[in-house]
Order: sequence, then structure tokens, then C-alpha cells
Amino acid sequence: MDETPFDDDTLHEECGVFGIFNRQDAAALVTLGLHSLQHRGQEAAGIVSYDGRQFHVERHSGLIGDTFTKQSVLERLPGGCAIGHTRYATTGGGGLRNVQPFFAELSAGGFAVAHNGNITNALTVQRELQRRGSIFSSTSDTETILHLVATSAARHFNDKLIDALSRLEGAYSLVGMTPDRMIGVRDPLGIRPLVLGRLDDAFVLASETCALDIIGADFIRDIKPGEMVTITEDGIASDFPFQKRRSRFCIFEYVYFARPDSNVEGRNVYEIRKRIGSELARESHAEADIVVPVPDSGVPAAIGYAQEAGLPFELGIIRNHYVGRTFIQPTDSIRHMGVKLKHNPNRRIIEGKRVILVDDSIVRGTTSQKIVQLVRDAGATEVHMRIASPPTSASCFYGVDTPEKSKLLASRMSIEEMADYIKVDSLAFLSIDGLYRATAEPERNRQAPQFCDACFTGDYPTALTDFDSAEETRPLSLLATNG
Amino acid sequence: MDETPFDDDTLHEECGVFGIFNRQDAAALVTLGLHSLQHRGQEAAGIVSYDGRQFHVERHSGLIGDTFTKQSVLERLPGGCAIGHTRYATTGGGGLRNVQPFFAELSAGGFAVAHNGNITNALTVQRELQRRGSIFSSTSDTETILHLVATSAARHFNDKLIDALSRLEGAYSLVGMTPDRMIGVRDPLGIRPLVLGRLDDAFVLASETCALDIIGADFIRDIKPGEMVTITEDGIASDFPFQKRRSRFCIFEYVYFARPDSNVEGRNVYEIRKRIGSELARESHAEADIVVPVPDSGVPAAIGYAQEAGLPFELGIIRNHYVGRTFIQPTDSIRHMGVKLKHNPNRRIIEGKRVILVDDSIVRGTTSQKIVQLVRDAGATEVHMRIASPPTSASCFYGVDTPEKSKLLASRMSIEEMADYIKVDSLAFLSIDGLYRATAEPERNRQAPQFCDACFTGDYPTALTDFDSAEETRPLSLLATNG
Amino acid sequence: MDETPFDDDTLHEECGVFGIFNRQDAAALVTLGLHSLQHRGQEAAGIVSYDGRQFHVERHSGLIGDTFTKQSVLERLPGGCAIGHTRYATTGGGGLRNVQPFFAELSAGGFAVAHNGNITNALTVQRELQRRGSIFSSTSDTETILHLVATSAARHFNDKLIDALSRLEGAYSLVGMTPDRMIGVRDPLGIRPLVLGRLDDAFVLASETCALDIIGADFIRDIKPGEMVTITEDGIASDFPFQKRRSRFCIFEYVYFARPDSNVEGRNVYEIRKRIGSELARESHAEADIVVPVPDSGVPAAIGYAQEAGLPFELGIIRNHYVGRTFIQPTDSIRHMGVKLKHNPNRRIIEGKRVILVDDSIVRGTTSQKIVQLVRDAGATEVHMRIASPPTSASCFYGVDTPEKSKLLASRMSIEEMADYIKVDSLAFLSIDGLYRATAEPERNRQAPQFCDACFTGDYPTALTDFDSAEETRPLSLLATNG
Amino acid sequence: MDETPFDDDTLHEECGVFGIFNRQDAAALVTLGLHSLQHRGQEAAGIVSYDGRQFHVERHSGLIGDTFTKQSVLERLPGGCAIGHTRYATTGGGGLRNVQPFFAELSAGGFAVAHNGNITNALTVQRELQRRGSIFSSTSDTETILHLVATSAARHFNDKLIDALSRLEGAYSLVGMTPDRMIGVRDPLGIRPLVLGRLDDAFVLASETCALDIIGADFIRDIKPGEMVTITEDGIASDFPFQKRRSRFCIFEYVYFARPDSNVEGRNVYEIRKRIGSELARESHAEADIVVPVPDSGVPAAIGYAQEAGLPFELGIIRNHYVGRTFIQPTDSIRHMGVKLKHNPNRRIIEGKRVILVDDSIVRGTTSQKIVQLVRDAGATEVHMRIASPPTSASCFYGVDTPEKSKLLASRMSIEEMADYIKVDSLAFLSIDGLYRATAEPERNRQAPQFCDACFTGDYPTALTDFDSAEETRPLSLLATNG
Repeated sequence: MDETPFDDDTLHEECGVFGIFNRQDAAALVTLGLHSLQHRGQEAAGIVSYDGRQFHVERHSGLIGDTFTKQSVLERLPGGCAIGHTRYATTGGGGLRNVQPFFAELSAGGFAVAHNGNITNALTVQRELQRRGSIFSSTSDTETILHLVATSAARHFNDKLIDALSRLEGAYSLVGMTPDRMIGVRDPLGIRPLVLGRLDDAFVLASETCALDIIGADFIRDIKPGEMVTITEDGIASDFPFQKRRSRFCIFEYVYFARPDSNVEGRNVYEIRKRIGSELARESHAEADIVVPVPDSGVPAAIGYAQEAGLPFELGIIRNHYVGRTFIQPTDSIRHMGVKLKHNPNRRIIEGKRVILVDDSIVRGTTSQKIVQLVRDAGATEVHMRIASPPTSASCFYGVDTPEKSKLLASRMSIEEMADYIKVDSLAFLSIDGLYRATAEPERNRQAPQFCDACFTGDYPTALTDFDSAEETRPLSLLATNG
Repeated sequence: MDETPFDDDTLHEECGVFGIFNRQDAAALVTLGLHSLQHRGQEAAGIVSYDGRQFHVERHSGLIGDTFTKQSVLERLPGGCAIGHTRYATTGGGGLRNVQPFFAELSAGGFAVAHNGNITNALTVQRELQRRGSIFSSTSDTETILHLVATSAARHFNDKLIDALSRLEGAYSLVGMTPDRMIGVRDPLGIRPLVLGRLDDAFVLASETCALDIIGADFIRDIKPGEMVTITEDGIASDFPFQKRRSRFCIFEYVYFARPDSNVEGRNVYEIRKRIGSELARESHAEADIVVPVPDSGVPAAIGYAQEAGLPFELGIIRNHYVGRTFIQPTDSIRHMGVKLKHNPNRRIIEGKRVILVDDSIVRGTTSQKIVQLVRDAGATEVHMRIASPPTSASCFYGVDTPEKSKLLASRMSIEEMADYIKVDSLAFLSIDGLYRATAEPERNRQAPQFCDACFTGDYPTALTDFDSAEETRPLSLLATNG
Repeated sequence: MDETPFDDDTLHEECGVFGIFNRQDAAALVTLGLHSLQHRGQEAAGIVSYDGRQFHVERHSGLIGDTFTKQSVLERLPGGCAIGHTRYATTGGGGLRNVQPFFAELSAGGFAVAHNGNITNALTVQRELQRRGSIFSSTSDTETILHLVATSAARHFNDKLIDALSRLEGAYSLVGMTPDRMIGVRDPLGIRPLVLGRLDDAFVLASETCALDIIGADFIRDIKPGEMVTITEDGIASDFPFQKRRSRFCIFEYVYFARPDSNVEGRNVYEIRKRIGSELARESHAEADIVVPVPDSGVPAAIGYAQEAGLPFELGIIRNHYVGRTFIQPTDSIRHMGVKLKHNPNRRIIEGKRVILVDDSIVRGTTSQKIVQLVRDAGATEVHMRIASPPTSASCFYGVDTPEKSKLLASRMSIEEMADYIKVDSLAFLSIDGLYRATAEPERNRQAPQFCDACFTGDYPTALTDFDSAEETRPLSLLATNG
Repeated sequence: MDETPFDDDTLHEECGVFGIFNRQDAAALVTLGLHSLQHRGQEAAGIVSYDGRQFHVERHSGLIGDTFTKQSVLERLPGGCAIGHTRYATTGGGGLRNVQPFFAELSAGGFAVAHNGNITNALTVQRELQRRGSIFSSTSDTETILHLVATSAARHFNDKLIDALSRLEGAYSLVGMTPDRMIGVRDPLGIRPLVLGRLDDAFVLASETCALDIIGADFIRDIKPGEMVTITEDGIASDFPFQKRRSRFCIFEYVYFARPDSNVEGRNVYEIRKRIGSELARESHAEADIVVPVPDSGVPAAIGYAQEAGLPFELGIIRNHYVGRTFIQPTDSIRHMGVKLKHNPNRRIIEGKRVILVDDSIVRGTTSQKIVQLVRDAGATEVHMRIASPPTSASCFYGVDTPEKSKLLASRMSIEEMADYIKVDSLAFLSIDGLYRATAEPERNRQAPQFCDACFTGDYPTALTDFDSAEETRPLSLLATNG
């Protein structure tokens, strides 16, 4: 499998989901929706449609715009209801059999499901199910949901699904489809986003509002933490079948994952990022001549920073968007120039200047190191790195691909050591309270945090059953597959 | 899906299986074995290997020689044990998810299985399993075996498998593999072939002896009807766990399916085919000048016929072996020349001659019609068609792709009508007793036939549960898939 | 060929060139250089290398990062000298045979050439060459150069090339390679850019400086208009073999084509674009609340505008960079949403605001119309469109893919009509003198313009032989090819 | 490029040509014609059509039935005239640019040509043409014809072509097409075949009559050695523009190349092969029990041998026709079993028998060695090898891919040594006079041989200019290409 080694130093959201009920050409609209959610997963995607008689599924590796937009593919997805999923493939891969949505023919009829998040006791539950004879055809935690539904003793479909989800820990925002309904659910903490929209008579479920915008759908509201909405021909119904908990939405969605033009949990992402920049300028400004973002993710915070600090905002680093997904660094002798495939400093802007460099986060630190070096080579006299989030010091188990804790720079170095490591004149991270302020909270409530901020604080809001017992963390299936 | 319309007028064996236990480069040997079994299924193939730690699977559409022989594919199949399967895709297809071997991670460990034959109560059993919560990931009858094993209450693996197979009707010659054993089983009637061989220290299971030949393995013996052999590091063990029944081997394997250089159930296929030709000459000789086979399948019978009749054997029809698998007939105006893509008569041989034309069977009759026309156009003064089997008047439910009964020419016409339809001067089929004589039986035992000859007689040796209740014959899954 | 209909409303540079002489792994470095020139042509690319004994060529459709970065491709391009070319395929295509570099085996040895620009008498010369027996294997104007060299009566290679180029009109910045030399030439007007760099002992030629940056090469200088540099093992030599003319560099390179981090003809592109924004604000400011660029090309001018006007710069439109190259709009019913595949307005930023919308140019006007509509739909109370160049009212014949004149909005409408057409509250273009000022010229010298600005003024600096006689404008070859 | 090492021990015809003039769907008919000529070249094929306005070309690697039969391919080849070519790629390959037909836009209009044979002074002429400025885009000798036509001073097209061909030595049967005519020519010796047929109003040119049969065209006659036929809307005209010579048709076409159902030069290939078998039996019969052909090429001679010798003809070796074109032998440890991929002896037929093994020729001897070993391993008590041609002791320079002379077994061993090398009990080749007798000649005329039999006698009927001067034998172009 081809690698993009210069890309393994960012965090990756693992999924985006989208569904539309009761609309001609449903799969074409799902395609558009997934295209606008492409930032949540670029490796593979799938769509399941239902034409009133039969389910249809397509799964492909690659970008939506290269795969699902072919006429022949869409023709194989007829019907007025469809759900889709876009995915960032984590290590191990597993090929197309791990690409969602998953589908099962239950004795009561077909059921398809697409899931954003991560179940933290999936392996444990899978082992139980295997002991009673269930056969898993993937290594995905999502398949566990299908089997729990299939083996539920409950009578009605919604009850089976509630039954199933009640067995699970972790994060899930999911969209499900049966012959007569579409269902959207968020876990009780509402860790991952899910929104409800409307396009004329059709209801839409999507990970973010930008996916409503692309099809011209109106935003109705966020699905609430712990809510299950059921969309049928008769309209929409809402339930709260799980034990009520305080919401803990993922704060990193604001920092990096969500698209800047999306509104999540009532807040506009671009505005929060600009406010993050302002907070950062207030907390830790350094004397400098220009504010330069690491594009593209650092741009809104840099604009906010520059406005607050009264410094010029300059595109001092140009990003090349043509990077292919399989850009192998051709030979050893030029391997070190990886970062240049994506970023080139503009010497005329930077030379002789004191530069505030704004980036969203530091993961392993290797990219920051290289970018700082580029900026210095381009003639910056000082480089002051400002990070639009607190130090990332703990892994995420809720659907984000993070390196193990020991690989996170912030887990093994102090800020001073990090500054030294990436060779900047000064380094500052946004404080956790500064981050909360940017979201319009007065500060982090230590007793009952308003968000999931485990990647910054190590304070995990759910049990982590699979990960607590080390021997259970091997992948479930012994099968390595390519077909 | 591309069609080869000039090919739908033959019967197709649906499968060949091959396994080798305890031999370096096991998958490479399976590749060779499947290559020699390619005549039993040309659409897709799969191999599962086990390297002492992990199972590996590869599934590909197309010929073995185009897919599995790439170094990169074989490198993904390490290990000293491997089983493989080659498959003729029946209508509906289902893509790679229906390509065997199937694999499941049972709570006791991995299990892979490859199956030749057809289970005639698979749908019925699948419905029961679904009601208890099993999820099927294919539309293949073979997956039922996996689920029955997974849900068996028996303790030991072999007992689980016996338990599972005891629930099934129909034909199965199968090869299974777990981390510590390879298992070969034939159904109690032994409808499909399965042979045991040895290559130095390694045991081999294969559908036909030609697959032993290609790897230089020695033939040990046929697996017996109802026998289960278990191959482990300690050697081989044999059981007969099912109720004892009289053997009913498929007689059509001799007529057409098996390779002429194979020995099945103790008989050499080429010799039987020559004897079939002799019987045919004895039963229904016509005055003629030359004996011409419809190549390639009619060749041995034509040699036998010519020797018996004392007439010259001539290659009066030349077969073009370069026919691609996707040869679409380019335009309507030339669609009728389909048969010429494969067969061309040699005018110089045929012109002015009375021709005995020998073919293995008549299915729909359309090909025969066209070939007779070709031979007449090439100047034959008389065409006497001789068929190396009795009239094919009933469908096979044991692993052969036959048109439904009403499409079989012999089910709706008398021999005279058929002669008229295909426009020959005379037409004769081998008698059922003649066919039995060719296999060295004195005649067909009406009370207890020595073979399964249901396609000629309609006398099915097993129940046909799924097919007896019409509403059950729709395909199990409502899912149409392409990924 | 798949179309991206929402993309046909921009101008496309047709080529980027890159060459390196005397450096291990030359082709890998050319790959990197072409990657950084990808904005000059995204449809196909080619590289020719010379290993001291033999030339090697690879040509592929698609992005560099998807094609040339495979190890297997680079292994087929050994040698220490290599040149490459990236190409925007114009209408008609012609498949890979039109992908440069072109190569010919001359009686004196091999010769490869890559060309940026367009020869305006190529068809006329080709006809002459055909009459004397030359056979063209492409429909590219570049092949004409090869044939003129091949048939030149001059003795030495450089003289043959001078001889050939002297016959041509139009724009050419080209990189050529023979077994013992690399040659860079710009046409006497220097319409297209070409720069010289150095990487340790190796010389580099490239369309833009950003391609030097990516491989860590130092910029030496621009190749001068009318200059031919010859790089051999002995070093570099410079000649000016053509009649001296005043330079007429393409001013649109500053407006749109060149990468913002490149320096061309001594000027930094990003800085000029910011100055263009400032000039625009000075010339035609409107009362408004925010300045919003049409991303990505409008960003630097919008920053300059906002700084000059003292208004907030806001990313009010978000661009989706995942647009596949083959994004077909799935069905008629949703075809109109094309522009949304790339651009989504951020309602929270725009709603209730008076917006200055900054874009680089207006071609057909269809995209502007749709973007204005998006911004209005997002709640802007006023939309004032400001264009960072004068009205584009004439076609380019020097290597840019422009619609024919009659399709250019500015050729058939006044500014007021255009404002009406795209439905803005006000529309202003930068004046031609404003544009010259942004490049640090005091104004346009009407008698002897400092740049080629034909697309704005219709003042073409060369003869247009092929285009002046209408009947000659059909493509040369009658052959439509796909192989 | 993948290799089939078990296939390099046969001789390969390099080309088949086909053209049809004045028939709807011409390209579809060319596709069928090439399919029936697939035995003359399996690596790649091309078709050029002319639709009255424009030429169209498609070139593809692989079998006709896998490439040209797609509807989309045929739709790109509209028009009522088309020519095609199928090709065996010789070493060095060169990719699709060497795939014929070749096309050139001459000043007088387009010209396409497809060529079977080999020009023995092509390199010499190419060098002359290059010196006057011609640029070659392939390494094929056929391109030389295009350039000679393009540079001919003659006025009319036919005269240009005559002019061109008069400059050439060697073998050529070619089909050419311009907007108003189709031309068929054979070299003065008529070394390669070319036949004329008619399908209603349309004329057809083809390498063999089997290609007429497949489209239902009537055979008119062989094009004569040195004849040029010109087909226009007005009908057909015949010329003999070259100096008259005695015909020297390639006798190996009868032995191996041509299809058995073709008639070439008035003789039926199958009949001659049977007569070859009879001659062989008369010349060198050995006591034996059965006659077994090496399939498929040895079959007709074995039938003839068996009839003459009064021995049973038996299919003692079964050929597997599913051998993929890229069958790589998977691992070193099993590499020696290569021949088994194609051939398996039928032990039951062979065991305990004295076997006459009939093959068409011995090239390197490695395959014979392996097949003899297989037959011995299957239990033959004696193996008598009979070869249906004289010893192949010299290379062909007229369009057949032969190993260099030193690799030919017969060039370095006596018959006794060969018998020893391949380990047979006896070995006999057909005598040269026996071969001539089989063609119905009384014997070989030593002074003026009736055929080209250079591969057996070393008596080359033309000059071999390129090959006589060793330094000229390197391939013309220094360019290695993959695009």
C-alpha cells in the first residue's frame, strides 16, 4: 500500500456520514453530500440505496469525485433512499470489506448502517457474539452493531437497535436505513456531530451543515446527544432511549476537523477559529512583523491573530493542492524534501522578517520541524510558533486516528523542549481555558467539562474496555485480505 | 456484465477445488492445481493460505493464469497450507463476495472452506439461521456451511462440521482448512469427485487427478462417498460419519466435465469417451465418408466412433482458441456469425462428403443448429449428427449451470423434431444403457442406478427442498452489490 | 473524455517545462519540478531522460503525483539528464501522442524538446514540411520544431536549432536535450517565462522559480528574451541569435498563471497581486463591510484590497480542494449546482453584510454569475465585484487556452451590461494602467507596451499567420487517435 | 514485460493483415478478420478506419477478443473502409508506438499501411532518410515505407508507393489505405501470403482465407507475387510494377504458421499437414503401438502418419488452453514444471506403449526434451520422435521471430546428437524433398527452389543488407519508450 509519509503527522477524522430519505436520485445527492464531507475521510467511500424493492451497494477506494460521479456507478444505485459514508483508512486496512455502509439481510429485512465515531468495547462484544456463532466479515467495530441488532430478542426494529446500542461504549453518530425508515442516532455524550436538514419533502442527515449546503437543503437542527430520530413516510419522530448524560462534544472538531463553513452545535467553525486566533494573540503575543499561517488549516486562526495583534496577515507559505494520494518520495537521496511537496515559503515575503507562524496543532512534531526550517531557510530572522490548541498529549479513542501516546510530542516534552526540538524562537499553545473561551464558554468546567477534550487533558468521558485490557487490543480477525 | 452469447449453449461445471497441507509455497502449488482445474470454472478464483499464525486470502476475477500467477499475489499468500477454488459465475453474479474459499473467524479459530457441488436446502437452512441472528455476507450456498459450523453446539471442530453437513441435502465435495488441519469430505452419494494425492510429505486434495499431475503428486485414491478425511501433522485419518448410501457419481463428468486425462472413480475419462464413441457407432451408425468432431469436446468420442466404424477421422471443423472472455458481437448486422468466432469448417475436407458430426450433448440446440449450417455451407452432402450422451431433458441441481428445463431442447421435442430443428439428415443420441456400458457397467440398474443421471432421466437422488417450494427459489439476499 | 463543466470558465496555461543537467536521479528531480509546476497544466505530463547511452521516455495522463511518483516509472527513466513537461490538454486531445517532451532520432543523434507557448505559424510551416516529405506524428505545434531541426542544412546542432526557431512566429520558452547538452531558449519577445537555477554542480531550467525551490536549487537569473543558453559538461554558454526586440512578457502570468511564490522577471507574483488589490481599492472602492476573495486565485488581491481599504479580509467562501478531475454532474436535475462542488459560502460571515467580492478575471461570466448568486443566497445585502485585471476581451494565441473571442463576456458587453448579467450591485475592473502600476511600471507605454497584454487590448506582438487565414485553422491532422 | 518462458521455444509469425473497402461497419469486420488471424500475432493489434472525412485509429495490447470487441472501441472506428493488423511483439517491444497499422498525413492526404513480412534493408534506408531530415516515430521497418512514400517525387499515389517499394528488399504482403483506395501488394517473391475476397459489394484483403470465412466473404484468388491491386469505388485494378521473379512462397506457412482450415497458394493447409504425416511415415517409420501428437500443431501430421502407418491415433497428451499470456512461473522451486502448464500426458493411454510422438519442428529443443520426459514418466516404453519438417538450422529474416542461428538445436547438432539430447529412442525429420512432395511438388528444384525454405537450407532468396554488416544490426532508435 502506498504511503504518504509527509501526511502521517496530522490527525485524521475517520468518517463522515450522509443520508437522504424520500428523494429521487437519492444516491446522486448522497454523492454530493459525501463530496462535501471528503475532509472527514479520503481513502474510500460507500453508498447503499434502496429502490423500494432491493438494496444496492457500491464501495470504492479513492475520492468521491473520482469514483462515485461516474454515470455507470450512479445507475447501479437506484432508489429514493440512500445513505453513504466516507472513510479514512486506518492501519491494517482490510480493503473494501471494511468500507461502510455495512449491510445485513436480517430475518425482518435488510438493514444498512454508516457510522462516525468509534466503539470502545467492540472487540469485547464481538468475542461474545462469536461464541454464540456470529460470523464477522470485517474488522470494523461498526459490524458489531449489525450483529447486535440481528441477535436482539426485541420485536420491533427500533427496539432492536436501541437494544444493540445500549450494549456499546464510545462514540457513535450513525445513520441507518431499512426498507421503511431512515434512522439517525448520536451516542449519549454526542461526541461526534450529526445534523438534520430538509430538501423540499425529503429529510437529510449529515455529519456537518456544509453537506446540507451543497445540495441546497435547509438546516433544521443538530441531532441531540442521546437522540434517535426515525424518518418514515409519515414524517419524523424523536426519542431519547438512553440514560441521560451531559453532552461532551469533541472540541477538536472546532480546532481542526470540521469544515470552516460548517456550523456545529450552534457555532460557526470559521468564527471559532478566528476567535481562537484572537485568544492566542491575547495570551501569548510575540513582537513580530507578519503573521503567516501554515496553510490551509492555520489560516482562520492566523487571520484572527493578525486582526487582534494588528499585524499584517501574509500568505508566506504557499500550499500545493495537487499532491496525489500516492506521492511516493522517489529516492532516498531526496526523501527529506517531503514537506516541500505540499508547502513552499515565499522568500520575498519572509526574508528579513520576524514571523508569527500559526498552526492548528502539533502531533509528532516532525512536520513543524520541517516547516520551521523552510521558513528559516527563506530568511526569517525570528520564528514564533503559535498553536491554535493546547498541547495534544493523549490519544483519541473516539474515531480519530492518533498516533499512540508515546509518539505525541507533547506527551514526552515540555513546551520549552518542544520549542527547542522544532527550533523556534518561541512556542506557545492556546490554553485549555482560552480554547473554551473561543467557543464562548467562560472557561473549562473542571467538574463537568462542557466538551470532550481528552486529547488535551486525558480525561476520557467513557469507559475504554477494549483498550484497558492489553491482550484484547489485537485486531479481531486473523484474516489478512485483499479481495 | 459482458456476455458471451455463443457460450450459453453448453453446460458449465461450477467449481473445482484444491488443497495442499504441509508444503512450502503451498499457494503456488494451489495456483498450479487450480490452473489444471480451470475447465471446471473460468470466471473467478480464490486461494486462502495459512502461515502458522494468520490466514491470508486473495480473490480475483478471470483466469488463474492471468491473476494468481503474479509474484505480488503469491507473496500475499504465504504459508505451508492452502486451499483454492475456481468458479463459474452463475447469473446474478454478486461480484467477488461470492468467490470461494469462504473464511470465518470462529470463536475456536479460523476456518476456510471451498466447495464443489450445490446444497439443495441451503435457502431453507439460511432462513432458519437468520431467524436466530446469523448474518450472511454472500448469496452462496457454501456460506451456510460456515454458519452451521459456527453455531454448532458440538465441542470439537470435526464434530461441528459433521453436525453442519448432516443438516444439508445435495452435492458437496469440499476442502476445509483450520489452523491445524485440512479436511476433505464428499457427500454420502459422492456426486462430485474428490481425489487424494501425495507430494513427498504433503497431502493433496483435488477435484481431479489432472491437478495432481501438474504438481507431480502421486494419486493415492478417490475420497469415498460419505467419507471425511482429516489431514494433520500426524498424518491422515478417515471417517464415515454419515448414514451409508449407495454411491451416485455424476455420469456427466465422464461425458463432458472432467478433463480427458483425469481418472475419476477409477476410470480414465478419455477412454470412456472413446468407448462412448464406439457404443454410439454400434448403436446408430449411418453411411458416411468421414467422422468430424465438434471440437474440442467431441474429439475423443469421434476418434472412438471412427475407429469402430472404420471411417476416417478428420478435423473438419477448426476451433479458434483465442476467443476472449468478453467477446461482444460488435453490431446487430453481424450478430448471427457468433459461432464462427469459435468454429470454422474446413471446406476442402467437407465439400462433397457425407459427414458424421460428433458432439457431446445438445442443450438448447442453437449451437448445433449453427454448426450444422456451417458444415452444410461448406459443402457437406449429408450431415448425420451423433450425440455422445442421451438427450439432456432435466436440469441439474448439483452444481452444474443448466438452463431451466423448458429451455432444454430435449424436454420439448422428440428426437425427430430435434433432427428437424437442427436440420440434419439423421440424429441419434447414445442410449442410457449405452452410456452405462461405456463406463463398463453392464447396463443401468433401474432400481438402484449406479450413477446420478438426473439430467437424462429426471431421477434425482436427493430431496430438492429449496426448489420444491416455488416461493423459496428467489435468491436469498435482497442486496445487489458491486463491491 | 470526461469534462468538468464548472471549470471551463477559467483560462488555462498550457504548459510548464523543467530540465536538469548532470545530476544523479535527474528524472526524480524533474518529477518534483513538474509537481510544483502542476498549476501550469494538469492533464498529462512527460519526462525524457538520457543515461549517457540511450534516451528514455514516459508519458502519462493525470497528475504528476499520481503517475510519475511510482518507483517503477522512475526506474524506467535512468540517467543524469532529463527534461519534462506538464500539459493542459486543449480540445481534441489527441491522447498521449501529443504529450511532450517530443523526441526525434536525428541523423546526428537524439533530440528531445519541451515547449511552453504557442507557435502562431506552425500549421503553415507544417504544410511546407509535409510537401517535402516530413511525416508528423502529432497535432502539436511543437513537433514542427523537431522537423525544422531535422531538415536544417546547418552543420552544428545549435545552428540547426537557431535555423529552425528563426522560421517560427509566436511564443516559445523551450528546453531541449541532446546526448551532450541541454538548451534553454526564449522567443525574442520573452512572452513565456523561463528561469535558470543551480543545484550544486547541476544546472536547472524551469518555467518558474517555485520549481527551483522544491528541489532546493538556487535561482541564478531569468533566461532573457531571445536568449539561448547551452549547458554542457563544460558549463554554460549564452547566445542571442535572433534579431533583437523589446521584451513583451505576458502580464497575465502576474494576474493569474504563475504561482504566487514564484518570482518572474524579477518580480514576486504574490506581491504584485497584493498591489493589484491595492490599486483596485484605490481606483474603485465601494462602501462595504467585508472583503471576500473568490478562492484560491482571488486571495492575494483581496488581502491587498482589504489592507488598502481598511476593511476586514474574510474567507467568506470556502473552496473544496477534493474536486476530482472527472467530476461529472450526476443528473440533469442537479446539474445547476456545479459551482457548489468547489465553492461554498459561509453564511455566518456573509449574512447581512455588504460584500466586496474579489476575483482575478471574468472569462465567460457563467461562474461569476453563480458565485454571486451563492453569496446573495447566503444573505449578503450588497455584492460589489472587483476584478483584479482589465476586461478580458481578446483571445490569447501564445499558449493559453481561451474561448474564442465571441464567448468572452467582455467582448460583447459593456461593464454595465456585465454588472447586470452577473447581477452585482457594482462591478469594476482594474484599469490597464493600474495593472501596469502594480508591476511597478508608471503606466502602459502605448507606443511600446512593456508587456504582452493582448488579451486585454487585442494588441498582438507577433504575426498570427495561421489564424489570419481562416481556412488554415482546422487542425493539421485528419487522424483521430486513441492509442 | 512478462515472459512466458515455456513459449520461447516455438517460432512465431509476426503479423496478420486484413482490410475491407466499402462496407458498413468496416471496423467490426476487420475485428472479426483479425480474430481469425490471431494465430499470426497475439501481442497487440491495431485498426485504422476512414469515414469519408477523417481517419481513426485504435491500438491495443492483448487479444482482439479482449480489446477490439468492446462497443466503445468500435464506436471510435466509424467508416466504410478499414484495415487492421495483428502483431507478435518481438524483443525490445517498444510499446504501442510499434503497433500497426501506421498512419501518415502526407501532403496529398492520409495514408495508412499494415505489413506482414520483414524488410531486410530497412535500417540502411532509414539512415538515408534520416540524413535528409525524416523523423521516425517507431522502430518498425514498416515506417520506412511511409517515409519513402512521403518523400517520393512521383506524382500519383500508386507511383509513390511503387517508387517506395522498389527501394526495399525482403518480404512484404501489405494492405494500404488512402481516402479513395485500398491497395494490396505482395513482394516480387510472394514470400508471405495475401488473398483477395469479396463480401457482396465490398472487397476484402487478408493474410489467409480463414479470415474470409469468418465474415462470410467469398475467396476470389491469391494476390500474386509482385502484384499490386488497387481497389476503388470503380472496382479493382491489378498491376505488376516490379521486375518479374520466380515465386518463393514460405514453405513454413504450410508446416506451422497458417491455420489448418486456410487455403494458401491454392493448397489446403490441413491436407498438406496430413500428407506431411504420410510422407514422414513412409520415410522413417518405427515399430510402435500408438501415434501421439504434440498438440495442437502436431495433430494433422499425426493423423496422416497414423493413417499411413495403420496405427491408432491417440490424444496421449492433453493441452490446457487456459494458459494466460502472462503465466509467470511462481517460484524457483517449481520453475521446472513449466511445460506442464500447457501439456499433460494421459498415463492410461501411454503406459506400457511404444509411442510415435509427432511434432511440427524442433527449435531450441528444450520443449521437446521436457515433453519426451513427460511421456517417459507416463510409462512409455519407447519414444520415437517424428518431426513434420526438416531440421530448422537457419534464422528467418522475413517476418518470423527465430532465435539466432546458434540457438537452433539443428545448427549445432547432428540428428543423432539431437536424439541423444532430447532422449528419444529414435528421431527423424522429414526430408526436404519429402516436404516438397507433401506440397505436391515432385521434389525441391535445387537450381530454382519453388519455395523459400531458408530456415531449413540457409538459401535466402533476397539480399540481407542490414544483417550482412554487423554494425548495422543494432535497433535504429536509441529511444526506449513506454508511452
